[in-house]
Amino acid sequence: MDDTADPPGSRRRIPPGRGSSRPRAQRAREVADVLRHQVVGGRFADGLLPDEHSLGRQFDASRNAVREALRLLRDEGLVTRRRGVGTSVVLPKYGHGLDRLAGLAETLAGHGTITNHVRSARVVTELPPAIAERLQVPPGAGAVHIERLRMLDDLPLSLDSTYLTADVGRGVLRGDLAGRDVFSLIEETADCLLGSAEVTVHAVNADPATAELLEVPAGAAVFAIERLTRLRDGRPVDAESIRIRADRLALHATLHRC
Amino acid sequence: MDDTADPPGSRRRIPPGRGSSRPRAQRAREVADVLRHQVVGGRFADGLLPDEHSLGRQFDASRNAVREALRLLRDEGLVTRRRGVGTSVVLPKYGHGLDRLAGLAETLAGHGTITNHVRSARVVTELPPAIAERLQVPPGAGAVHIERLRMLDDLPLSLDSTYLTADVGRGVLRGDLAGRDVFSLIEETADCLLGSAEVTVHAVNADPATAELLEVPAGAAVFAIERLTRLRDGRPVDAESIRIRADRLALHATLHRC
Repeated sequence: MDDTADPPGSRRRIPPGRGSSRPRAQRAREVADVLRHQVVGGRFADGLLPDEHSLGRQFDASRNAVREALRLLRDEGLVTRRRGVGTSVVLPKYGHGLDRLAGLAETLAGHGTITNHVRSARVVTELPPAIAERLQVPPGAGAVHIERLRMLDDLPLSLDSTYLTADVGRGVLRGDLAGRDVFSLIEETADCLLGSAEVTVHAVNADPATAELLEVPAGAAVFAIERLTRLRDGRPVDAESIRIRADRLALHATLHRC
Repeated sequence: MDDTADPPGSRRRIPPGRGSSRPRAQRAREVADVLRHQVVGGRFADGLLPDEHSLGRQFDASRNAVREALRLLRDEGLVTRRRGVGTSVVLPKYGHGLDRLAGLAETLAGHGTITNHVRSARVVTELPPAIAERLQVPPGAGAVHIERLRMLDDLPLSLDSTYLTADVGRGVLRGDLAGRDVFSLIEETADCLLGSAEVTVHAVNADPATAELLEVPAGAAVFAIERLTRLRDGRPVDAESIRIRADRLALHATLHRC
């Protein structure tokens, strides 16, 4: 069903595949990618994926390729497979927008209840120099350190660790850290909206300690995000490291060419 | 060196840590996070990290916590540690912007040479229905499928697999697929700038087939990105699945509050 075309400019020529004779691993990856995308898009409202035969038709893929795709998704913790029941989504996977600066609780409003286990909430009189540099304050200016394990409907979603500048941080410490986003607490304390944040997203294998907290297998792929948030006047006030379970959250953005 | 503060609203009260007596794993994670961030920021121009003693001072962390942090970064493939030499960055890690729609070669211009191994470049007469739906065409409209392994300075960076609508795709097939971004080939073919793209970023453990192509250990954390790109008139023309080595690339964005 495919017309092959000579790959122009190919350095390492591999015969182009033909229909379902393409390597099974390649097909399986393709099927898994579309299904993962559909899970985040909320396609399977009842949590049940179509059966193998019907997936094979939708993707023009062999039964074996479909099975391999479903195994990949199972290994990601996205679906479970049970004889007689079929394949179902373990947990809904949500999209967190990278278009606008928002806290997790804001983003997930309507999808479930976010609560936080506060693991650390303390005044630090001397900042580690590397953190002080990010916040553009001298180490002796001190700070507030907050670490929270964020739960969505009582299951771990992310581990957020942050240093806040002393002025803003002391106000945040008095707020409802179990129930609210740090962003809204900062805005209340500073009586001023936040301006912008620089975000760097990494994908890493969870170290054993983090994996235990997030209740994922050690080595599971998780997002590790560094976020430096500034007030509207440009002053950095919040230097965060966030680890997010990648089986529960994807990141979304709409990008424009110009 | 820390004043403890009562974590307000804590559901599960854990005594807040005190200076370097905080759990080693937590400290190690913190050190690793800042160092990872500094590697992407190009802080270590000569590729060499400070010695353990000096890192301990910068982070107010014990020697053991520093060692654990460096082990985490080694396991991510970011650094190597050699007796007598110290800790050095294996490969520079670059930031790919999520602020503006750009191809990888565009983003990495100046950082090295991008070349592509073309693994598939073919006309598909009948599209898998699930892909046709994303491109908003009937399956019988056909498409062009292109899969490329993208190399930065002769080391694998990403595996890009895409379906292009037939009209745009046939033009792209005639272009220099080994040397150029698909985006610029589409713009040349369509004689029209691209408009926007919806991007969804996942973190997944690399399946064995992908890991072999990307030359990372099976199970290594990689980015899996779905990107649907549209012409300026809003018509989708390019449905991509991209896997990116997370030890070589981080994603960057600047977000605004309003």
